[in-house]
Amino acid sequence: MLILLPAYLSSETPLSHFAPVISEYIMRIDCYFVENEKTARRLIKFYCPEKKQSELKLILLNKSTQTKDLGEGLEWLKEGTTCGLLSEAGLPCLADPGNILVSWCHENKIQVVPINGPSSIILALISSGFNGQQFTFNGYLPIDKSERKQRMNQLEQAVQRTGASQIFMETPYRNNGLFEDLCKTLSGQQKLCVASNIGHPTEEFIKTLRVSEWKKEKIDLHKIPTVFIIGR
Amino acid sequence: MLILLPAYLSSETPLSHFAPVISEYIMRIDCYFVENEKTARRLIKFYCPEKKQSELKLILLNKSTQTKDLGEGLEWLKEGTTCGLLSEAGLPCLADPGNILVSWCHENKIQVVPINGPSSIILALISSGFNGQQFTFNGYLPIDKSERKQRMNQLEQAVQRTGASQIFMETPYRNNGLFEDLCKTLSGQQKLCVASNIGHPTEEFIKTLRVSEWKKEKIDLHKIPTVFIIGR
Repeated sequence: MLILLPAYLSSETPLSHFAPVISEYIMRIDCYFVENEKTARRLIKFYCPEKKQSELKLILLNKSTQTKDLGEGLEWLKEGTTCGLLSEAGLPCLADPGNILVSWCHENKIQVVPINGPSSIILALISSGFNGQQFTFNGYLPIDKSERKQRMNQLEQAVQRTGASQIFMETPYRNNGLFEDLCKTLSGQQKLCVASNIGHPTEEFIKTLRVSEWKKEKIDLHKIPTVFIIGR
Repeated sequence: MLILLPAYLSSETPLSHFAPVISEYIMRIDCYFVENEKTARRLIKFYCPEKKQSELKLILLNKSTQTKDLGEGLEWLKEGTTCGLLSEAGLPCLADPGNILVSWCHENKIQVVPINGPSSIILALISSGFNGQQFTFNGYLPIDKSERKQRMNQLEQAVQRTGASQIFMETPYRNNGLFEDLCKTLSGQQKLCVASNIGHPTEEFIKTLRVSEWKKEKIDLHKIPTVFIIGR
């Protein structure tokens, strides 16, 4: 059985009511697929300080990992061991690695059990005021300036044509650049939602304005986890 | 301030660890926007039995409601009263009404605060094994047979062209019909994930197979909340 475990290091956020549920699973599970061994050990220690680190079996699963690299981990699952797929932040497999393992589980008739956790992408969407009946998560936009501009225009056209909300992200240290490009590229009438620090009680920032209004605002999104949405 | 409140009646599911958080908000809030008055009163009673039902102020907000119908509720928000937008199941505004109110809040500079809750759509996606870097939620497919068939073909083409996962739903009493139509319409090689009763520990069913394999399976999805996903 593969348990999909969301994970959060902060104990100060409203998300901390998840901790007891996650701790219970971590107590029971010794074998994990993780994006980064060091962070994973820290997370496991946070949720379950009494767990012996020396007894943990960790298999690396990041965005470059292929199924064949998961070797021993696949054996554990086949033998019936309950394993965890541990996210670094948010939910595993959502804008995060992991789906190659889940796909392998389906092919090998191994049960997959998702444990709920907060998704900043979805919380941003429901707080944007935009269409939540049809939406697309587009992941990261291209880095190349002209490709990125073209993609922004395509997304705006998709909003106008279908009404579906268009969600996207950027590596946090490039957020200000993305925001500037959005203001330059989208039409003034287009509504844009900027949702930062979702789940942080004091620092959460969620605002939907037209691009013409955003141009008059001063915001600094540098290194702040942010979800961007355009919609109507 | 508008608080977006997820809601679940069952106390037997793993989702019940949300109850204390939701109860705390419901204790503090008297004014709610609700999809159905009777269900909302039952939910509020479930989370907060000591709360006086006679003191509740409820404003109807369903899929046919327009902003102008929200009259008094908008006044409360403008005066600074903390109001709740209460979902019947899952998250408000996600395949559910509410976004017209959230949109109005942004236009009127009223803070919107999302409270996390489980979303069966997202839990289904991360458990499907499909692409979680790009995906589209398409809501409900058309009821008309030929339009529906055409839409299914479009979604399959979108998967093949872009690799983005395509999520959709049906009114639960029509699930078996949708499943049959998918098996008839999609190509045998296309992978389909059927995710039912997400969050119910004993009844959860999540399975990804190729359509040619699904044709050999017997499943009954009648009246069972189900999320369908095609992807690769």
